[in-house]
Amino acid sequence: MKKLVTMALAVCLASGACAQTPKTIKLNAPDTQRGEVTMQAFQKRQSTREYADRELSMQDLSDLLWATIGMNRPDQNKHTSPTARNKQEIEIYACFKDGAYYYDAKAHELQLVTEADVRAHIAGSQPFAATAPVCLVIVADMDKVGDDSPLSREWAAVDAGIVSQSISLFCAGCGFGTVPRGYMNKEDLHKALNLRESQVIYLNHPVGYLK
Amino acid sequence: MKKLVTMALAVCLASGACAQTPKTIKLNAPDTQRGEVTMQAFQKRQSTREYADRELSMQDLSDLLWATIGMNRPDQNKHTSPTARNKQEIEIYACFKDGAYYYDAKAHELQLVTEADVRAHIAGSQPFAATAPVCLVIVADMDKVGDDSPLSREWAAVDAGIVSQSISLFCAGCGFGTVPRGYMNKEDLHKALNLRESQVIYLNHPVGYLK
Repeated sequence: MKKLVTMALAVCLASGACAQTPKTIKLNAPDTQRGEVTMQAFQKRQSTREYADRELSMQDLSDLLWATIGMNRPDQNKHTSPTARNKQEIEIYACFKDGAYYYDAKAHELQLVTEADVRAHIAGSQPFAATAPVCLVIVADMDKVGDDSPLSREWAAVDAGIVSQSISLFCAGCGFGTVPRGYMNKEDLHKALNLRESQVIYLNHPVGYLK
Repeated sequence: MKKLVTMALAVCLASGACAQTPKTIKLNAPDTQRGEVTMQAFQKRQSTREYADRELSMQDLSDLLWATIGMNRPDQNKHTSPTARNKQEIEIYACFKDGAYYYDAKAHELQLVTEADVRAHIAGSQPFAATAPVCLVIVADMDKVGDDSPLSREWAAVDAGIVSQSISLFCAGCGFGTVPRGYMNKEDLHKALNLRESQVIYLNHPVGYLK
């Protein structure tokens, strides 16, 4: 993140528009020609809990977020990961040492929600997640579904799983490590990310370069 | 399926071991070098409801099932699609015109569960699914999870979503069409597939060649 923040910071200092932690990070256009062949992504899909000790580059972070739930058909407002009845209730938060950001897929940018390091809440009793270069948190906003019934929660869970496997297969096919995790301190994380009451946390994915 | 059944039939008639619809179909080893680069799978992921009017080849069906939930690390009993706490409760049924099969990931083979065409129960009011070359049905066996609590159901829903996106991204990256569907006649389908009480149907995916 230091590199990322440094880069973003350089841009916003030049424009004189922001404080120490950038409020907005414009991501790069995705490199849609990268990665191994599709079946290699499936061959290499596995859970990885150890990552190299370096931050993701801007391009890698941009590609990760786009593959996760970015818009692959912006003219139709449609995403790499589908949602049940196209409710688009799934939201992604990217948590770094220097703060946590909401991923705005339409703008393909990160928007600061807190300058705090929330990764300890994500890690719980598994410290490897507290030091991962980035932890993605998969959230469903039940207001976007329209109701918070048990059936709607079940669909939100399915949709969270869909996004999870997008992350896993992107990482496997493009040389990153990750693991889908359900355990975390959801209550503290909910507060720390300033989530609304309608937002339900489902999963998290620490992501990093392979060791 | 005609081609597939014909091929499998030729094998089992030669061995004199089976009736008209093959009870077991041994799948080919996956072609782990196929498909477009990973990011193209994400670029092309979309819902497709029209398919060419021809059956999948044995290799294509083999690759589809392996990518869906096959074993990519057989020595560790581990799969392309993970499950929460590695409960491995997700089961896949492949439904063709000539019958429906359970996919045994360990043996990488299809095992006949009914000679009936169950695709009409999958289609419901959307006839395109009733004529898709194959419909994959994603089921969770709650006995494998160990309990049938609301929380376990939520995890099973997440795991069903994970497998769904494996199907979607395999199809996008390897030139097939598919769509994740929640709507179907679950009660009739449960009976027609001879499912146990502990097995819960979550999703289905018609799959075919692009038109």
